Amino acid sequence: MTPDEFRAAGGELIEWIAQYMETVESRRISPDVKPGEVMAGLPQEAPEEPEPFSAIVADLNDIIMPGVTHWQSPGWFAYFPANSSGPGILGDLVSSGLGQQGMLWATSPAATELEMLVVDWLVDLLGLPAGWKTAGPGGGVIQMSASDSTHTALVVARHRKRSVAAAADMVAYTSSQAHSSIEKGANVAGYGHVRLIAVDGEYAMRPGDLESAIATDRAAGLTPAFIGSAVGTTGTTAVDPVRGIGDIARREGVWHHVDAAYAGSAMICEEFRHHQDGLELVDSYTFNPHKWMFTNFDCNVFYVADREPLIDAMSITPPYLRNRVSDSGDVIDYRDWHVPLGRRFRALKLWFVLRSYGAAGIRHHIREHVRLARWLEARIAADDRLEIVAPTPFALVSFRHTAGNDATAALAEAINASGHSYITASLLDDVSFIRVSIGQTSTTERHVKRLWDLIAGEA
Amino acid sequence: MTPDEFRAAGGELIEWIAQYMETVESRRISPDVKPGEVMAGLPQEAPEEPEPFSAIVADLNDIIMPGVTHWQSPGWFAYFPANSSGPGILGDLVSSGLGQQGMLWATSPAATELEMLVVDWLVDLLGLPAGWKTAGPGGGVIQMSASDSTHTALVVARHRKRSVAAAADMVAYTSSQAHSSIEKGANVAGYGHVRLIAVDGEYAMRPGDLESAIATDRAAGLTPAFIGSAVGTTGTTAVDPVRGIGDIARREGVWHHVDAAYAGSAMICEEFRHHQDGLELVDSYTFNPHKWMFTNFDCNVFYVADREPLIDAMSITPPYLRNRVSDSGDVIDYRDWHVPLGRRFRALKLWFVLRSYGAAGIRHHIREHVRLARWLEARIAADDRLEIVAPTPFALVSFRHTAGNDATAALAEAINASGHSYITASLLDDVSFIRVSIGQTSTTERHVKRLWDLIAGEA
Repeated sequence: MTPDEFRAAGGELIEWIAQYMETVESRRISPDVKPGEVMAGLPQEAPEEPEPFSAIVADLNDIIMPGVTHWQSPGWFAYFPANSSGPGILGDLVSSGLGQQGMLWATSPAATELEMLVVDWLVDLLGLPAGWKTAGPGGGVIQMSASDSTHTALVVARHRKRSVAAAADMVAYTSSQAHSSIEKGANVAGYGHVRLIAVDGEYAMRPGDLESAIATDRAAGLTPAFIGSAVGTTGTTAVDPVRGIGDIARREGVWHHVDAAYAGSAMICEEFRHHQDGLELVDSYTFNPHKWMFTNFDCNVFYVADREPLIDAMSITPPYLRNRVSDSGDVIDYRDWHVPLGRRFRALKLWFVLRSYGAAGIRHHIREHVRLARWLEARIAADDRLEIVAPTPFALVSFRHTAGNDATAALAEAINASGHSYITASLLDDVSFIRVSIGQTSTTERHVKRLWDLIAGEA
Repeated sequence: MTPDEFRAAGGELIEWIAQYMETVESRRISPDVKPGEVMAGLPQEAPEEPEPFSAIVADLNDIIMPGVTHWQSPGWFAYFPANSSGPGILGDLVSSGLGQQGMLWATSPAATELEMLVVDWLVDLLGLPAGWKTAGPGGGVIQMSASDSTHTALVVARHRKRSVAAAADMVAYTSSQAHSSIEKGANVAGYGHVRLIAVDGEYAMRPGDLESAIATDRAAGLTPAFIGSAVGTTGTTAVDPVRGIGDIARREGVWHHVDAAYAGSAMICEEFRHHQDGLELVDSYTFNPHKWMFTNFDCNVFYVADREPLIDAMSITPPYLRNRVSDSGDVIDYRDWHVPLGRRFRALKLWFVLRSYGAAGIRHHIREHVRLARWLEARIAADDRLEIVAPTPFALVSFRHTAGNDATAALAEAINASGHSYITASLLDDVSFIRVSIGQTSTTERHVKRLWDLIAGEA
């Protein structure tokens, strides 16, 4: 493809995406395809000869698009958002165009330093501890997903205790409401034990139960190595008491990781920061700009309070080859901050987003999503047929039908059958409930009202 | 950013990338910036108010670009290529625009099935074992990097032996010339021991030494768990004897992983496939279309001969909740194939590339790169001042100055100081050598001849 052919095809695809933005609202969110249908619609062998670009775009429209789930629809209320934006898409485009590989500072100084800059910006924007900036002992890095960051934290915690115990005798603690990535990460990192600590009536971890579990494990000869707190659980966005858990972690000498994958973005608004009280007691922290900060997937940020143990666990460079400027903080070689070696220039899209929206713009959108969630929560609370099952600290509303699980399941199905609104049906203990996560970039009052009319009509 | 603003800004950036393609050859490959310079050129705080798109593009040009290393220059001969192309960039653009999150089949049937399709295509294109297709017991998945895939293989191998030994008593084997990701991945996965097996005169692993090492470890009560072979080492693209190592692995019941990160792409040409003889004895395999298949970073492919142990190690879904259709192969939930949960629609860019080039087009470019490498190798071999230090099975030429390490280092520096050509200086035992890796998308005879003139002039 010559530069001129790239101009033509690129122009066509920019227009294609703009039209997708304009029409996504009118598309049925969940595709009506059977397993195997997309694959069967395409040639089972790669073409021997080059195909014209028009043939690819035709198949994109005719075969791929009918199999796409419209995460970018304003009626998307399922899971957590994976919200995207024009600036995010375009920052990513520049990243693809430049084709940087930022494994070392030297292999792309700009990629490394812009990443340092934007993760530093976020420390200020989100009210995180100042020591997490790259000029301090800690620092941030962009990874692919919160699962990667949590796994990394688990590995560092295990590595730190390696002279004390075998991994099979180490224990990771998190609440019964924590994201599955903690249990998965612990398995992947080889922990022998994962304890799911009980939660209180608002689904937050009970620190007393954590203390007891640690004591029991110590008595049994096991080694507590990792505690994962959640600021915003996946089920209901419950907030664990970070300070209380942090005190225990410090006293016990256990690594304390905070998963704020979804709710971290909200901390750009000061009124939510009480939910992260105690972060100065935390060893690592992760959140996803690709969930609720208008930066398209993948963009996860991982912070450590002290980068020394991270680099110690991840670097394969023997001590006598250690890069002095790297250790000093003058230069960061991000390959030593995570499992992969190669790395894309992901900071660009975050930089594009932060500058295009400005902090005020992001605050405005997040507050609007929270306002809409509280509006919906109030409607549901006022309806006798429905019941709120958990608090709404951010923009996720959790509710059920008072007639029971079958009625809740039927309501969930009816909402998703609408085609224009899409939610997730979930389970708390044995109680079915519906999660309405408000955070898509283009979601406005109109879409939430339409959802409420649908709920009220179908309930 | 409205759709119309996106049209305008997107059009501008497509033009910007097209101009970058047209001008990259004239740019000094390695940027002339000091540590901290890029960061210092930018505001240390995020803007409070939105900034116009023109301000971002101005900073991109004035501050970011001077800090960029031009991996896409036709004079790029360093490391391995991270070669990119118009179709790859545009496939990635569509991925960003659609904003899919393909963790489950259901969260984007098209993302899952197009991924199944392209990894299946590659089985045929590269002459890999037919059982690695998704219709067979195995299958492929796109990950971010070969380091991720190798780490995944190490975790699966460890998991398979978990009832036999603790991770700290497990051993991973690879050659002394293998990529550092094997040692790093073993550390991350918690292996207690990594053995770097000696190589022969062509830098390929000695199977006899592997056998002895395994016997010694068994005698010491350790548990051999993982063997990593390389088809194309990073240092000199040496090829380990996959069949011989595979026989040992089978006999010993040890997981056998092949790292063909760079050279895997060459297997689209039949004349290179003798280098992968024995793949039917392999448990897992990885290669990077983002190195030498014109698909911009990140795009790594990971295959397993049997997906059961992979899913067993990676899935956190308890057996009684296992998804029957997923296990049967009718539906794949790729979240169970790797550490991260979220996943981008990466198959699009590979599909765009394979269709735009066609198999014949990719073969043509790879053969041309190999031809140019052999041409350069012949020039160097015929020059008394220079010496080839390792064979050139693919498109990497490894040579030194016969006057010794200082002369080699001076030559390397002179080449890189040219600005138009860029190579990597490396070390084999204590001998300095220069790696010339020919594989950038736009590299032609003219660029390799210019490099040769430079070498001959400076030697």
